Amino acid sequence: MKQHEITLRVRYAETDQMGVVYYSNHLIWFEIARTEFFRSLGLDYSKLEKEKKIYLPVAEAYCRYRAPLRYDDAVSVVVRLKEAGNTRLFFEYDIMKDGKVAATGYTSHAFINGSGRPIPVPEEIRAILSA
Amino acid sequence: MKQHEITLRVRYAETDQMGVVYYSNHLIWFEIARTEFFRSLGLDYSKLEKEKKIYLPVAEAYCRYRAPLRYDDAVSVVVRLKEAGNTRLFFEYDIMKDGKVAATGYTSHAFINGSGRPIPVPEEIRAILSA
Amino acid sequence: MKQHEITLRVRYAETDQMGVVYYSNHLIWFEIARTEFFRSLGLDYSKLEKEKKIYLPVAEAYCRYRAPLRYDDAVSVVVRLKEAGNTRLFFEYDIMKDGKVAATGYTSHAFINGSGRPIPVPEEIRAILSA
Amino acid sequence: MKQHEITLRVRYAETDQMGVVYYSNHLIWFEIARTEFFRSLGLDYSKLEKEKKIYLPVAEAYCRYRAPLRYDDAVSVVVRLKEAGNTRLFFEYDIMKDGKVAATGYTSHAFINGSGRPIPVPEEIRAILSA
Repeated sequence: MKQHEITLRVRYAETDQMGVVYYSNHLIWFEIARTEFFRSLGLDYSKLEKEKKIYLPVAEAYCRYRAPLRYDDAVSVVVRLKEAGNTRLFFEYDIMKDGKVAATGYTSHAFINGSGRPIPVPEEIRAILSA
Repeated sequence: MKQHEITLRVRYAETDQMGVVYYSNHLIWFEIARTEFFRSLGLDYSKLEKEKKIYLPVAEAYCRYRAPLRYDDAVSVVVRLKEAGNTRLFFEYDIMKDGKVAATGYTSHAFINGSGRPIPVPEEIRAILSA
Repeated sequence: MKQHEITLRVRYAETDQMGVVYYSNHLIWFEIARTEFFRSLGLDYSKLEKEKKIYLPVAEAYCRYRAPLRYDDAVSVVVRLKEAGNTRLFFEYDIMKDGKVAATGYTSHAFINGSGRPIPVPEEIRAILSA
Repeated sequence: MKQHEITLRVRYAETDQMGVVYYSNHLIWFEIARTEFFRSLGLDYSKLEKEKKIYLPVAEAYCRYRAPLRYDDAVSVVVRLKEAGNTRLFFEYDIMKDGKVAATGYTSHAFINGSGRPIPVPEEIRAILSA
């Protein structure tokens, strides 16, 4: 099962008045992890959009918040490709701090073309993901 | 089952280069709906935090994205209190555009005090929610 | 001098751990005020982009923060068209709370076409703005 | 004149439907550069807030947008401490891509204590900044 890990620092802008990371930012971090996951496999997601007009919107997103994260925390996000079907991808995530799980989550995605129509997982992507 | 509906306009800042609302913003709208849900019942959530040092962080969040939303769309968010247990609240949401569902989701919450410790649902809140 | 006023409520997501609105959000509010300014004059900015491929990116933005704004504050934003030259628009803003100025600012803008090239202020817009 | 440089990748969440970085995000990047500027001098800004209840809110922010930035661009932000007076700090910024300036800007800041009162630049900070 392919996976990738990124690290990031919590931005001041990501905190809220409770003094912790506001809960929608975890989804932004999931996305950064996906971008870097693809890059680690030699796939440039930004080119996929620009050159092939292939897009990978989110169909579902879930996050379970286990421990608060704070400004300037060094955080790692582990992303795992859990499933690569004919029409969708399914990713799982762990957000870690100091070796402990701060949040877990998942996203599912379907590929669409430039007209917004669903398309099968492109062959080049399937090849890379199943390599 | 108590519920409340708000309307909002999609901000330019909420779009992404796919031309649609970026997927983490739906969670921000869920929160606005919760604030207004509480206000509609006579409960000022901001005072709860400020005066009573009672907080309602998110334990879980889920969103299913069914149709894209775009800049300047007039959107409504319906929030329903689905469950008010001894220690947690569970909300469901529908994000609607032109009478059609664009996204659905839920959040669960546990109350904590100023020290970050879990506390039972405060009596005053339980009274309002079960009225 | 044309102007328009909008009101909004500070979102939880807009606060930071200092307990006040994070400083980049004021620029997002400026934008909302511009959208509604145009609408008040009968101009649908979203259509301008979609149907005419005319865009109005920001060339400069400035904000002076005078008083903190907090979660759930009812805030008004006044936008004034200060200058509409041949190639650029210049807007001024006041962000008000309880009748007092919380922030002031300005933005300047140049029109571009779908290829990203600068274009003169479109005639239809000039007509509306100088009406 | 002390300065520091950071690099970052443009996040998908930071783009808008014009296909470029939305204009308020540059201010968030300025902040990240300030945090790392302080860290490069041995000053942990997060501790300053947490342990000393000293805060450095933004009094003014300005940005001039010269060239669009796009998703996944590798961007560097150079921050320079331009002035450290008795009561305020003044920073200048260059946002660079491929060796070219994409944006420039500045922020000014005043120190406040836990009660929100303005205080002189703390001695320990002055010492570090003028070292």
